[in-house]
Amino acid sequence: MNALDFFEARLQATVSPMDYLNMKKMNPDKYFLIDVRNGPEHVRNIIIQGANILPEQEIQNRLQEIPKDKEIIVYCWDVWCNTAAKVAKLLLERGYIVKELTGGIAAWREMNFPTSDTAQQEAFSIDCGC
Amino acid sequence: MNALDFFEARLQATVSPMDYLNMKKMNPDKYFLIDVRNGPEHVRNIIIQGANILPEQEIQNRLQEIPKDKEIIVYCWDVWCNTAAKVAKLLLERGYIVKELTGGIAAWREMNFPTSDTAQQEAFSIDCGC
Amino acid sequence: MNALDFFEARLQATVSPMDYLNMKKMNPDKYFLIDVRNGPEHVRNIIIQGANILPEQEIQNRLQEIPKDKEIIVYCWDVWCNTAAKVAKLLLERGYIVKELTGGIAAWREMNFPTSDTAQQEAFSIDCGC
Repeated sequence: MNALDFFEARLQATVSPMDYLNMKKMNPDKYFLIDVRNGPEHVRNIIIQGANILPEQEIQNRLQEIPKDKEIIVYCWDVWCNTAAKVAKLLLERGYIVKELTGGIAAWREMNFPTSDTAQQEAFSIDCGC
Repeated sequence: MNALDFFEARLQATVSPMDYLNMKKMNPDKYFLIDVRNGPEHVRNIIIQGANILPEQEIQNRLQEIPKDKEIIVYCWDVWCNTAAKVAKLLLERGYIVKELTGGIAAWREMNFPTSDTAQQEAFSIDCGC
Repeated sequence: MNALDFFEARLQATVSPMDYLNMKKMNPDKYFLIDVRNGPEHVRNIIIQGANILPEQEIQNRLQEIPKDKEIIVYCWDVWCNTAAKVAKLLLERGYIVKELTGGIAAWREMNFPTSDTAQQEAFSIDCGC
């Protein structure tokens, strides 16, 4: 494998925060974004806006929640977590089209791109009774 | 592809800030460094010292500015941007020798390696009338 | 090479801080962790707990210190250093089983995972006379 193969594979396997934000604006319904982080919920209550929460440890049992007709974007904590890569591998083996969001939620937040607070959402849904 | 192929490809495709600084000192004329970041100029006025500014979106029309006889080093914002990888792919396909500077300008600045401020340069060239 | 090959290779070649911590707890004797950073000792006195210090520049002459029957984990400064990748390549070529710890010591410290201060250890061993 040479340098060109390396860049081609990386570009095929990943999407940057900027690129994903633009692609999403142009085709809002084309993508299915998944937050695959494991661990206690309270440390991962800030998620990327519009993300579906499917922790890597549960994904094998929740495959039916992932649409086959959308492009799947997965992310975890940062550049150095492998959780999103594990899920990407699993889904690619099952025929999904998948890309990893580079830098995970850390890069997304560094860019000040839109996020949601799931703790607040829950608090709100309890308050309003819905 | 096994782990060895992966590391070989990565080392062929990239150069770290420390390694580039050393290589540049030993062979100042061997390299042509390109800042390929897109976006508004004022947010990218700090560049790596000696970098040539050729945003990715303009590169197809400015290929003649890139010397064929030098080793091309490209960089963007951080570890997680794909802009430099896109340019590396495009130039490798056209026969250039190209490496990506790992970590982009973020890693370079974290190392306190030398940068230039293009805004100051411009201000200065206006002041002095040259 | 397609996206699946890319993720498979990356997962074969690397281990995340979280995964390494868990693997180490389950099999404390299975791994041999190496800090391969070069440079002045005083700037790299904080190491990952349990790491063996074998700078990349010395490794060719100190191969006999690396056990053949353990899984070798190498790390350097951050996501963007290539020093660990160089050592991984060298050891894989010699038949070792090797993975790079993603994010190096920067990611490890960001996670507040256990480290040691080699300067303090030295100070202590001088003080106590042992």
